[in-house]
Amino acid sequence: MDIERILLAHGSGGRLSQQLIGQVFRPAWSNAYLDLMLDAAVLELPAGRVAFTTDSFVITPLFFPGGDIGKLAVCGTVNDLVACGARPLFLSAALIIEEGFPLRDLQTIAESMAQAAGEAGVKLVTGDTKVVERGSADGIFINTTGIGVIPAGLDYSPAAMRPGDRVIVTGPVGDHGLAILARREGLSFSTPATSDCAPLHRIGEALAGFGRGVRCLRDPTRGGLATVLNELAEQSGCGISVREQDIPVSPVVRGACDMLGLDPLYLANEGKMVVVAARECAEEVLRRLRQVPEAAQAALIGEVVADPPRMVVIETELGAVRILGTLEGEHVPRIC
Amino acid sequence: MDIERILLAHGSGGRLSQQLIGQVFRPAWSNAYLDLMLDAAVLELPAGRVAFTTDSFVITPLFFPGGDIGKLAVCGTVNDLVACGARPLFLSAALIIEEGFPLRDLQTIAESMAQAAGEAGVKLVTGDTKVVERGSADGIFINTTGIGVIPAGLDYSPAAMRPGDRVIVTGPVGDHGLAILARREGLSFSTPATSDCAPLHRIGEALAGFGRGVRCLRDPTRGGLATVLNELAEQSGCGISVREQDIPVSPVVRGACDMLGLDPLYLANEGKMVVVAARECAEEVLRRLRQVPEAAQAALIGEVVADPPRMVVIETELGAVRILGTLEGEHVPRIC
Repeated sequence: MDIERILLAHGSGGRLSQQLIGQVFRPAWSNAYLDLMLDAAVLELPAGRVAFTTDSFVITPLFFPGGDIGKLAVCGTVNDLVACGARPLFLSAALIIEEGFPLRDLQTIAESMAQAAGEAGVKLVTGDTKVVERGSADGIFINTTGIGVIPAGLDYSPAAMRPGDRVIVTGPVGDHGLAILARREGLSFSTPATSDCAPLHRIGEALAGFGRGVRCLRDPTRGGLATVLNELAEQSGCGISVREQDIPVSPVVRGACDMLGLDPLYLANEGKMVVVAARECAEEVLRRLRQVPEAAQAALIGEVVADPPRMVVIETELGAVRILGTLEGEHVPRIC
Repeated sequence: MDIERILLAHGSGGRLSQQLIGQVFRPAWSNAYLDLMLDAAVLELPAGRVAFTTDSFVITPLFFPGGDIGKLAVCGTVNDLVACGARPLFLSAALIIEEGFPLRDLQTIAESMAQAAGEAGVKLVTGDTKVVERGSADGIFINTTGIGVIPAGLDYSPAAMRPGDRVIVTGPVGDHGLAILARREGLSFSTPATSDCAPLHRIGEALAGFGRGVRCLRDPTRGGLATVLNELAEQSGCGISVREQDIPVSPVVRGACDMLGLDPLYLANEGKMVVVAARECAEEVLRRLRQVPEAAQAALIGEVVADPPRMVVIETELGAVRILGTLEGEHVPRIC
């Protein structure tokens, strides 16, 4: 293709659409399903319940320290499948591209998607490309929708949470949110802020052996750790009590948040998981998690309590106890 | 919710996101899967191969004679599943909304999606909502991704096409494309142009009994009938020969196309299917199709030929034979 920018006709379904698929997506994503070029991919799934999840990515900037929208789009959906206990298997990818978008950037994004998918062991099996007029979208938006299979015996759900269960986070929080914010606002720190964007399939594999000893997983993306803890409290009917000093936060995130007046507990993460585990196996879960590269800094941060129900309380470093609410308003728009 | 327009914070993942889900999507779409509000829906699928397909809808205008973006988003993905021989079962829905979008329009769209899903017998089981700043998208974009199950014995594929097979279209072509174009350009005709947007699951059910007597199905959306016939020729390695006078076109589409210099064979359809059937059962397929309301005007339009390979030829009403090419350039942007 000797054009350098995306044209409206690349979204027409006609010859230029076919060229774009043939020259950008098929070489990057090639697999036996995609290559058939049917209206749908036809999959043979292993036995088990099927997990099905969707996410659109509208992040700005498209390229950021630690990743780009393509890597994020694959990791985000892989991680939602992992959060359900599923082994991620297949992804669809649907792109909405603004007319004039650089073809080179599209190729970079397609290759990032392929690389992240390869790492996570998932296949990009079906896709769609639409092009809208200049000014009708902001660069590129990507939807990924994923299918995974949940092994027998796993049934992660907040409904399984019980007072006394332990709450674990798989590493320092706030990195993705800060990296995006810093890039967007042109802030620089002595240690650069880097997104934690990563596929967490190995965390899923590490936890599968604990069966119902692991109650539920949740990835703290938009709204951050605080919002996800509140969702878990709301959905379980239990309370959650966490200790501020046990929540890992990297020095760069802590420093930047102090300076900017942000709370790292509300900043998005794209490579972390919140794990609720039964008290009796929580230590073993923690030990096992720390063997996974993406969870090497996993930490026990609190526990499930009966009272107050449906709320999250945090014991601050000064020993005070306060309510940790859900994100109100918009902290950092277009973070994912 | 006493607000009238979508705010950025509705896409935050925080409290306003939860309110939007609770007050717009859950009431409209409620089902046992969605109501669990997990990161993914957990599905039990019947036996069979799984069809998986994705489509983003960026149509303008959002509301048009015969439907709206919500109905279109459900029908489009249902029909892609039907085209693979699958029984459509589950859809995800991911919305990208421009800040300031009227809440009332969002409710109308959510209800249209629910109605189309109910008609097609599919459930909207998982979703995602993102909000981008005013000017960063054009109103609303919707991605739907679908899962269906293909009964044993069905394996629709252009690779099954053989010279002598018959080509059927399930009704008049060009209605959706003309309806959108007319609305966009403010054209009016004595008979209004109305989109054919409809879920075609009943066509899939009607054809399932023919087993491999039906070679393949394809829905002629973007690029129209001509482009889909070319895809089938390309993918099968066979040629296709059609007769212009046998291709059904409604009087309003024919009249408008004559006036505007458009070719109805390149206009999008959202409620039609191209069916390739073995010669020996083609008449019976046609008879059976005509019993389905959405295919009452089905017509035999041509046949698969050995020569010329990978091309589509059309015998015009004057008796001349010419090549019918794939859509070049962009006929009508943002048609779906």
